[in-house]
Amino acid sequence: MNIPNSLLFDIIEHPYFQRLRRVSQMGFSNMVYPGANHTRFHHAIGCLHLMQKAVQVLRFKEIEISNDEANALYIAILLHDIGHGAFSHALEHSIVDGISHEEISLKFMKKLNIEFDGQLTMAIRVFEGKYPRKFLNQLISSQLDIDRLDYLKRDSFYSGVAEGNISSERLIAMIHVVNDELVIEQKGIYSVEKFLIARRLMYWQVYLHKTGLSAENMLVNVLRRAKELSQKGERLFASKALTYFLTTKITKENFTDETLKIFSKLDDYDILSAIKEWTDSTDKVLSLLSKMIVDRNLLKVEIQQTHFSEADIDAKISELKSTMNLSDSEARYFVFQKQIQNQAYNPSMPIKILNKNGALKDIAKASDQLNLQALSKPVIKYFVCYPKQMKLAQS
Amino acid sequence: MNIPNSLLFDIIEHPYFQRLRRVSQMGFSNMVYPGANHTRFHHAIGCLHLMQKAVQVLRFKEIEISNDEANALYIAILLHDIGHGAFSHALEHSIVDGISHEEISLKFMKKLNIEFDGQLTMAIRVFEGKYPRKFLNQLISSQLDIDRLDYLKRDSFYSGVAEGNISSERLIAMIHVVNDELVIEQKGIYSVEKFLIARRLMYWQVYLHKTGLSAENMLVNVLRRAKELSQKGERLFASKALTYFLTTKITKENFTDETLKIFSKLDDYDILSAIKEWTDSTDKVLSLLSKMIVDRNLLKVEIQQTHFSEADIDAKISELKSTMNLSDSEARYFVFQKQIQNQAYNPSMPIKILNKNGALKDIAKASDQLNLQALSKPVIKYFVCYPKQMKLAQS
Amino acid sequence: MNIPNSLLFDIIEHPYFQRLRRVSQMGFSNMVYPGANHTRFHHAIGCLHLMQKAVQVLRFKEIEISNDEANALYIAILLHDIGHGAFSHALEHSIVDGISHEEISLKFMKKLNIEFDGQLTMAIRVFEGKYPRKFLNQLISSQLDIDRLDYLKRDSFYSGVAEGNISSERLIAMIHVVNDELVIEQKGIYSVEKFLIARRLMYWQVYLHKTGLSAENMLVNVLRRAKELSQKGERLFASKALTYFLTTKITKENFTDETLKIFSKLDDYDILSAIKEWTDSTDKVLSLLSKMIVDRNLLKVEIQQTHFSEADIDAKISELKSTMNLSDSEARYFVFQKQIQNQAYNPSMPIKILNKNGALKDIAKASDQLNLQALSKPVIKYFVCYPKQMKLAQS
Amino acid sequence: MNIPNSLLFDIIEHPYFQRLRRVSQMGFSNMVYPGANHTRFHHAIGCLHLMQKAVQVLRFKEIEISNDEANALYIAILLHDIGHGAFSHALEHSIVDGISHEEISLKFMKKLNIEFDGQLTMAIRVFEGKYPRKFLNQLISSQLDIDRLDYLKRDSFYSGVAEGNISSERLIAMIHVVNDELVIEQKGIYSVEKFLIARRLMYWQVYLHKTGLSAENMLVNVLRRAKELSQKGERLFASKALTYFLTTKITKENFTDETLKIFSKLDDYDILSAIKEWTDSTDKVLSLLSKMIVDRNLLKVEIQQTHFSEADIDAKISELKSTMNLSDSEARYFVFQKQIQNQAYNPSMPIKILNKNGALKDIAKASDQLNLQALSKPVIKYFVCYPKQMKLAQS
Repeated sequence: MNIPNSLLFDIIEHPYFQRLRRVSQMGFSNMVYPGANHTRFHHAIGCLHLMQKAVQVLRFKEIEISNDEANALYIAILLHDIGHGAFSHALEHSIVDGISHEEISLKFMKKLNIEFDGQLTMAIRVFEGKYPRKFLNQLISSQLDIDRLDYLKRDSFYSGVAEGNISSERLIAMIHVVNDELVIEQKGIYSVEKFLIARRLMYWQVYLHKTGLSAENMLVNVLRRAKELSQKGERLFASKALTYFLTTKITKENFTDETLKIFSKLDDYDILSAIKEWTDSTDKVLSLLSKMIVDRNLLKVEIQQTHFSEADIDAKISELKSTMNLSDSEARYFVFQKQIQNQAYNPSMPIKILNKNGALKDIAKASDQLNLQALSKPVIKYFVCYPKQMKLAQS
Repeated sequence: MNIPNSLLFDIIEHPYFQRLRRVSQMGFSNMVYPGANHTRFHHAIGCLHLMQKAVQVLRFKEIEISNDEANALYIAILLHDIGHGAFSHALEHSIVDGISHEEISLKFMKKLNIEFDGQLTMAIRVFEGKYPRKFLNQLISSQLDIDRLDYLKRDSFYSGVAEGNISSERLIAMIHVVNDELVIEQKGIYSVEKFLIARRLMYWQVYLHKTGLSAENMLVNVLRRAKELSQKGERLFASKALTYFLTTKITKENFTDETLKIFSKLDDYDILSAIKEWTDSTDKVLSLLSKMIVDRNLLKVEIQQTHFSEADIDAKISELKSTMNLSDSEARYFVFQKQIQNQAYNPSMPIKILNKNGALKDIAKASDQLNLQALSKPVIKYFVCYPKQMKLAQS
Repeated sequence: MNIPNSLLFDIIEHPYFQRLRRVSQMGFSNMVYPGANHTRFHHAIGCLHLMQKAVQVLRFKEIEISNDEANALYIAILLHDIGHGAFSHALEHSIVDGISHEEISLKFMKKLNIEFDGQLTMAIRVFEGKYPRKFLNQLISSQLDIDRLDYLKRDSFYSGVAEGNISSERLIAMIHVVNDELVIEQKGIYSVEKFLIARRLMYWQVYLHKTGLSAENMLVNVLRRAKELSQKGERLFASKALTYFLTTKITKENFTDETLKIFSKLDDYDILSAIKEWTDSTDKVLSLLSKMIVDRNLLKVEIQQTHFSEADIDAKISELKSTMNLSDSEARYFVFQKQIQNQAYNPSMPIKILNKNGALKDIAKASDQLNLQALSKPVIKYFVCYPKQMKLAQS
Repeated sequence: MNIPNSLLFDIIEHPYFQRLRRVSQMGFSNMVYPGANHTRFHHAIGCLHLMQKAVQVLRFKEIEISNDEANALYIAILLHDIGHGAFSHALEHSIVDGISHEEISLKFMKKLNIEFDGQLTMAIRVFEGKYPRKFLNQLISSQLDIDRLDYLKRDSFYSGVAEGNISSERLIAMIHVVNDELVIEQKGIYSVEKFLIARRLMYWQVYLHKTGLSAENMLVNVLRRAKELSQKGERLFASKALTYFLTTKITKENFTDETLKIFSKLDDYDILSAIKEWTDSTDKVLSLLSKMIVDRNLLKVEIQQTHFSEADIDAKISELKSTMNLSDSEARYFVFQKQIQNQAYNPSMPIKILNKNGALKDIAKASDQLNLQALSKPVIKYFVCYPKQMKLAQS
């Protein structure tokens, strides 16, 4: 792995970027796949590496990419996820819920742009989709972007789920640009199909694995509870950064430079070390959820294609309220229904196939068969979490 | 790799089986993928290995399989391809065209059954689908049989086309038996889909790769031509075994024990060493085709979804007849059209998915989406071969 | 991976064992090899897996191992490292320095033995080397024990240093037992040599890599400093468990059941989250070292085969004292010399090779050449750490 | 894999080079390792690929290599083994024994140089070691040349002996040039050690594996016998090319352009197809050896560190003469002693290590320990082949 220039080197060395060493890529998936401890730092570096390949491939095919444009791609892909909070998506759904991680990424880029005297300006335009050559943005964000090419391969490797493996380098070898749009050469059809199927498999088998789903939602709940208590004035053990986000309501409007600075100190270590201490909390919900996470004694999960009946869920809540002596709102931290969804192929931002005669076609139509069209329909499932009674009782 | 018992050991040591060391699994695919030199011997041994895993998995799931049944499975899978001729499918389409390789496999098994005092009787019944427990035959021959699980993985490995890789062991871990039928557990749906997509990719990208297609069809033609000449009384350089098949018309009826014995001596080495000598033949078609194969100066191939016009092909033939001074039938050895086809999923022998509630469902219906249904339609393509003019002229 | 019985399952589920999920196997090696984030939990599980293979191999070779003995091996290998503190070796050299991790492992086993009604008694005897059949202990602890077979392979895999890779399964296939002693079959000589060379490479290239060495020693120093301050009465941000070890002098004698219970709550998350807060400490040494670790702005390292001159080191210290306004003892947190050593082959606990005629020989003598004898001499190197001036000044 | 220019493309397309597709790299090692069917063609292409990496690495380190020099390297490495006969070394020890394969390689290069109008002149000088810049030749032929870097990795991969695996790319990353000499950077010491140990392991465990040794020596004997009979005037089944070498005594002097042309037609297929026919020969030695090879019913092998007693061998010969009714010279085709040897490190053409201060040192002295010095002593072993009586009798 070589770093193309000193600007990129300095960005990597920057504390904002080094924080990503302490943010795991797959959150609590390591509760199921114990090897899945790789970090957002490693993913970002891998993306930079693949982006260098992509630029090389396109230049070889005589697509002109200036050095400034190449550099903009490298910076944009390196920083595309820098706004991810600790434990990846968990924060967005709990204590930092007023703003998306993409928006925070952009804030980080703008902040770094000031520190680095405007050298990130083009990268920011590319990231925002405001640069005229559309394919540069598509390399950062599309159905076959560098981000996905890296994380699918990486997550498959570290989780040990070999079936999710994809041939990133082969897919990159088949990209091309027509009318400033990113396309795939005809011979790549079967590879793209395989990529989409591998991604679908990773979603349902790995990212949405029952155990990981349970752990992640318990994490969301424990943070929500902690924020609820903190906002009522209770002082919980927490780092300064975490304390800030527990006690402050976050909105797009109040996410200032100061907030960003504090956010830049918050990582997996703040969260998990706090949860470990909260196992001794006097709040029953907080201590119990914390203890269950730390000891990996997780809520049971059931998944199905249809909505679970509210009556069934209410029955479980009632039972829990009486056995555990909880209020209704407390019980709902342990018993809840949510939905998950995945769209294997999204026809609204199509992957375009380049025919030998130069014509472009949406892959869903270019395929020999209509299987990709079938994969365009989003699949929605429902899951419910609740305590395994026996273990709960004995806790 | 351990061999379960001495009967299997003796079968492996038998000259009939050792012949498979000299029959390549992928024929002339090594003209495209130079690492693809693995043999039918290695494939058969690999199948035996996977079958042992399958028996272990099923017994672990409390499906009773007697030692005799297990042994029958091992023998049947070891010998399922023993009737394959040199260069795999090429012989079936040329000099041994009156009988299928499956029928020859059965003849070999019956012959060995006599030598081994009836110890192969149950294996033969399983192979023929006559044994009452249907799943035993399905392990030998179905859409998800051990044969496919081994060859897809192996062909992907040796050709270096990593995208064709499948997780044989994981798929085996998910098999089960219900009502004497082989089924896949629900959680295996995405893995089966990925297997079907990988197989489709291997078909169109590897097995039906233009270069391999050209070489294989030239091989068929060179053998057809040699047989034509031999039957007219011309004496061509050839081993005794090859001479027999060049001079004798083969039908199911005249394929005697003696024929089988001669067949058991015929392998890739007879074929390719003869072709090398035929480069000096006085017959223009034979010598030219032979030389083109040996020097890997192959016919050009074009593939499309529709039939090529006969007029175009006739025009090419006319041109060739005059430039090369060939008769019409001679020219047709160099210019011809054929069709190829692949059905990614065959609903007439469905892969059944076992629900958690015990119900069985065709995977094409059990999948979240209708993509497998879309894959059930056979895809047919057409290809035409003809000489690259320049090279042909100079030969 | 299957877990042999419910006792082992319950041990794995126990919070003592689950803690290992939060202790990284290679400490700060991820500062060099960003993929090296695997945990002691994963290593222990891997050891259990290999031990099952070893038992299978030996039983196949007709070495009798009772079910109780097998179980003792499984428990002992699963728990052999349970006493490792956060960041592996760093604690032993700082705040928990009065007792070794092996002694703490033993304490955990004895504690669990009480909880599990004496079912760990034989495992403990095997672990301590008190069980009559010596080879059982050698599988747990020797130059070719299961521990090394797992961690070398695993560390090589996750660090991405493919050269350190070893064929654990092949080595296990060649173990045997003679006179209750673990030996290697003759044909394994070259494999053992390759294992020893791979291990040596891993030591000098990975475990003792300059960057990792720097980070680990800075971690030791930051913890030493924190303990020094704590014992003077300063209140530092820390979890309850860490606070205990910062404020309490640990000796073998005062390491009670209560200490063990607190130790069982201490992991990487306590340490790193504290260090992150300490970046704001009013103590210059503590805050600076903490900040350097968090931002990966590490001390420079030089390694050589001979002792560095004390005069040179003193000169560096003097310079630092004046530029940074530090006392002598404070400066020594930033400038120090240590030695590292590795013995590729330790002849005092020889690996014995079993000849075809049944004789045993130390591998250093059984090898064709005297290369292993040459590898028996311990190699000692010295390293010095000191601040990269420029960066230090600007911090 | 991309081919740098059209000259290289044309060389690869040339029938002389295409012949290598039909010469296996490891001869009869596939009798032991059934996956070891890779060809000299694949090896040569792999060498070209690695040489491109080497040129890239050296140029990156600012070693000037002109385009002509790079091209000479590519041609020389591509053709370094083109003179290898069928089944690699077997021919050199039987029917083509008057000339080495290196001399034949050179003849091929000179012949191609004429066909390609002198464009191979520099490549030939590099290959012969006559080009002034010595390191170019060392990349083609030295203890750490591109040839070894490719074949060790490739042979390990296809034989499935993972222990022989080496990190070719990492070793190439550490080459450098000082005073026109190829050297290895200091940090590569452990990698080179590991390479030497892996190579030693491959020798004794794979290349000199008993079964392969037996098969290869039987092949040599069958060819020697065939030549003996042919020279007495017997007409054996054989291709024209093989017939030539069976009937003609080959010396350096009579190896003309015509001989070279015939040699260019001889490959594994001529040899093995002939042996298959010879199983029916009226000569007892020829038919029996042939049948044993074809059916993989090989001679038994014993290996030891000392010479076997001639008396023992004579006793075996006597026994064989009487049981099989053979003459003494005939019996010696079945019972014979030979020696094998390997030198793990050859100090007469040392691998030089480049210190950080720019000094060069023989790695045997640069290593921390004297283990490489110990590996400099050649190891000689003796083996004897003789029939497994029972099987012999029943043939």
